Amino acid sequence: KRKVMKSSSPPYQHVCQVGDPVLRSKASPVDPVEICSPQVQKVIRTLIKVMRKLDCMGLSAPQIGVSLQVIALEFTERMLHENPLNAREIKGLAPFPLKIFVNPSVRILDSRTATFVEGCESVSGFSACVPRYHSVEISGLNERGEPVSWQTSGWPARIIQHEMDHLNGVLYIDKMDSKTFANVSWMELNE
Amino acid sequence: KRKVMKSSSPPYQHVCQVGDPVLRSKASPVDPVEICSPQVQKVIRTLIKVMRKLDCMGLSAPQIGVSLQVIALEFTERMLHENPLNAREIKGLAPFPLKIFVNPSVRILDSRTATFVEGCESVSGFSACVPRYHSVEISGLNERGEPVSWQTSGWPARIIQHEMDHLNGVLYIDKMDSKTFANVSWMELNE
Ligand SMILES: [Zn+2]
Ligand SMILES: [Zn+2]
Repeated sequence: KRKVMKSSSPPYQHVCQVGDPVLRSKASPVDPVEICSPQVQKVIRTLIKVMRKLDCMGLSAPQIGVSLQVIALEFTERMLHENPLNAREIKGLAPFPLKIFVNPSVRILDSRTATFVEGCESVSGFSACVPRYHSVEISGLNERGEPVSWQTSGWPARIIQHEMDHLNGVLYIDKMDSKTFANVSWMELNE
Repeated sequence: KRKVMKSSSPPYQHVCQVGDPVLRSKASPVDPVEICSPQVQKVIRTLIKVMRKLDCMGLSAPQIGVSLQVIALEFTERMLHENPLNAREIKGLAPFPLKIFVNPSVRILDSRTATFVEGCESVSGFSACVPRYHSVEISGLNERGEPVSWQTSGWPARIIQHEMDHLNGVLYIDKMDSKTFANVSWMELNE
C-alpha cells in the first residue's frame, strides 16, 4: 500500500521563501471580471489570513504561491503602539485600515529617499536597510473590482513599494545595503 | 541567590551569524611571535574543530568570534566524491589537505572570473551565485609561524577568496547576484 501524501497547493497558508521561482516571476494581472470569482476571492481571503497570522503590514499573492497582481496592506493601531514615540515620527509610521489592491500601479510623488531597516516574510528571520521613496500614489482595483487610489508617505509608502516590488519579482535584498543584512537572532546565537 | 549564567566566549564552538559586528570588522594581524602561544593555538584548534564539525571547506577566525587574520582550509577526498563527475571538472573541484594561514595575503594570478553557487556558514541555510577569480596565490605563515605560499585555481581558489574576504569584513552577499540568493530549503517548505 502506498502512503497518501498530504501535499498543499496555492494559495498556501504559509509564505514562500527566497529561492522559490514564484517570488522572481512577474505576476499576471487579474481579469477585472474575475475579481469576484470564488478563486480570486479565496486568494484575497488567504492573503489577509496569512498576513494577520504573521502579524506583518503587507503581503503579496506571489508570497502565497499565486503569481497574480494582488496585494494586501494593513497597519493597525496595535502595531503602531509597539514602536517607541520617536520611531513613529522618524519613520513616518501611521496606521491605516486593511486595503486590497488588484492590478496596482504606483506613481512617485516625492522621489527623495529615506533609508530604514525592513524585513520580508519571504526572507524570514533577516532584515536590512533599504532606501524607499518618501511619497507615492497607488492606484488599482479593490476586492470588489472598484477603482481606488491612495496617496501616502512615510512607512505606508514604504510598505506599498515593498509589495509592488513583489509583483515584479523583486525582493528587498536586490536593493538593500548588503553590509546591513542581519540575522535578527545573531546576538542570542552567541549566548 | 543569583543564578550563575553559563556564557560562552570566543573562540566559539559555533559560527557567528550575519549581523554580528565581528563579521564586518577588519581582522587584526597576529604578531608572528605569538603564533605558537596557547591563545593563538587554541584559536587554530577551535577553527579546525568547528570547520570539521560543520563539514565545510574553509573557516575564518572572525566566524568563531576572533578578529584575527587566521583561516583554515581543507577539501577532503570524501567531499570531492559527494560531487558528480561533471561538476568536479566544471567547478574545478580538487582536494587538498588541511592548511592554516596566518596573516595571509592574496595575489590574483588569473583575473578571469567564474560564477558558481556558494554558501557561508555565517549565512546558514542560504546560497547564491558569486563570481570569483580563476587563479590566485595565497602567502602567509602556517600554524608554526613558518612562511608558506600556495598557487591554486578553480574551487580551492574560490575558497581562498571567500575566506580572505572574511578577514576584510566582507561576505559573499556583498558580491552575489542577489536574484540567485536562495533558502536551501525553499522547496521542502512548500510541502
Ligand atoms: Zn516581502
Ligand atoms: Zn564564509
